[in-house]
Amino acid sequence: MIKVVAKAKLKPEVNPEDYIMLARELVAETRKEKGCISYALHEDINDPTIFTMLEEWENEQALEQHNQTAHMVRIIPELKKLRESGELNIYREIK
Amino acid sequence: MIKVVAKAKLKPEVNPEDYIMLARELVAETRKEKGCISYALHEDINDPTIFTMLEEWENEQALEQHNQTAHMVRIIPELKKLRESGELNIYREIK
Repeated sequence: MIKVVAKAKLKPEVNPEDYIMLARELVAETRKEKGCISYALHEDINDPTIFTMLEEWENEQALEQHNQTAHMVRIIPELKKLRESGELNIYREIK
Repeated sequence: MIKVVAKAKLKPEVNPEDYIMLARELVAETRKEKGCISYALHEDINDPTIFTMLEEWENEQALEQHNQTAHMVRIIPELKKLRESGELNIYREIK
């Protein structure tokens, strides 16, 4: 299993509800994908401009396929327009 | 439930094994704590200097108690000596 932490900081003028609405659509579609173990939108409890997707995937191949899906190709550019910055890390657990 | 993502970038001269050894001790002690749902060390699959603790806690009170435990007070300053930078975010899921 691999895990993804995809953290975004919104532009100050953006209404968080606009970001959440788009991200919810992405969550609903992504959870139907093969190889997706979990995929959930989170808000920072101390900073209302930070939103992070916490994801679990069976393997890297599943994640690569996810990145090519129609919903990702359509929604990610829309989300990026609302972000001031973003960072994405892919992790494996150290036992 | 709340989730914590605690990401660290090691100083370039640090041996990652030294960081992992200390962090493993923290993992073992923390998993015994009341209110700890999960607590696991992760490595970035693309950057061998990035290590991130992914944590799930029952509530903020459990996390506050965790921060005052003897193992945290003892081990966190040791880990910080090995880090170039770090960031910590606390999240709740948006359903």
